[in-house]
Amino acid sequence: MSVLELCDSEVAAVSVEANVADAICLMLERHVGAVGVIDREGRVAGIFTERDVLRKLSLSGRAPEKVPVRELMTTPVELATLATGPAEALATMVERHFRHLPVVDDTGKLLGMLSIRNVLQWRIDNLTQELDSLEHYVANDGPGG
Amino acid sequence: MSVLELCDSEVAAVSVEANVADAICLMLERHVGAVGVIDREGRVAGIFTERDVLRKLSLSGRAPEKVPVRELMTTPVELATLATGPAEALATMVERHFRHLPVVDDTGKLLGMLSIRNVLQWRIDNLTQELDSLEHYVANDGPGG
Repeated sequence: MSVLELCDSEVAAVSVEANVADAICLMLERHVGAVGVIDREGRVAGIFTERDVLRKLSLSGRAPEKVPVRELMTTPVELATLATGPAEALATMVERHFRHLPVVDDTGKLLGMLSIRNVLQWRIDNLTQELDSLEHYVANDGPGG
Repeated sequence: MSVLELCDSEVAAVSVEANVADAICLMLERHVGAVGVIDREGRVAGIFTERDVLRKLSLSGRAPEKVPVRELMTTPVELATLATGPAEALATMVERHFRHLPVVDDTGKLLGMLSIRNVLQWRIDNLTQELDSLEHYVANDGPGG
């Protein structure tokens, strides 16, 4: 299973040339907590998140439409690829306290944005399924059946 | 198991008289995404979250030290009590798209703040444990053992 299947169908991203207000508008419009920041080739330059708004903008007294997003974005950023499994992504996110992990292709082009919530939910579904089938096995066949 | 065991040991809260800058400072200091907003008796009046900062403050052009937190807080807010189980809390949070759920005593006094991440992690630990013991059972004893 690819981590891309756990991402929103359309990835939210702004250009490195965008300002912070553009990025915030997109987050509000898409109901997401993070957007990718991409260059002209669509490659990930960084991510801009709710946490960046809280930490770097909210008490700064700066007008968001006058601040380039590249100034407040989080970069460098850890990336997942199509070869990254959900379990591996989850381990990285939990260990490093990341809420979001961009998924990129071979050239670094942004394909999707993974959120910790979706990955945790995947893990729960996954474990529940395993448990169900093992319970079914015990109830119906037994190890020798 | 009480949901309180899944909360941070010390709950982050500001007074209803506080301003938005006070609330943001506390969020940054404690590394949390939400603080409780409480009255003089410690009862929950609302919660103030990263999402409130993004939605209601970041593009408003208002100075956070001049905005009362009660103006931007989320209220009324769903509450958990000591009688709420983690599974019930999780169901509420997933269904209603809440990231945080305050835990209160009988009088409405704030005891802790539950985050969806901690509850999802609890569910994973819980399922993993169930799965491990069932696998152990199948390997060693079998249903008839």
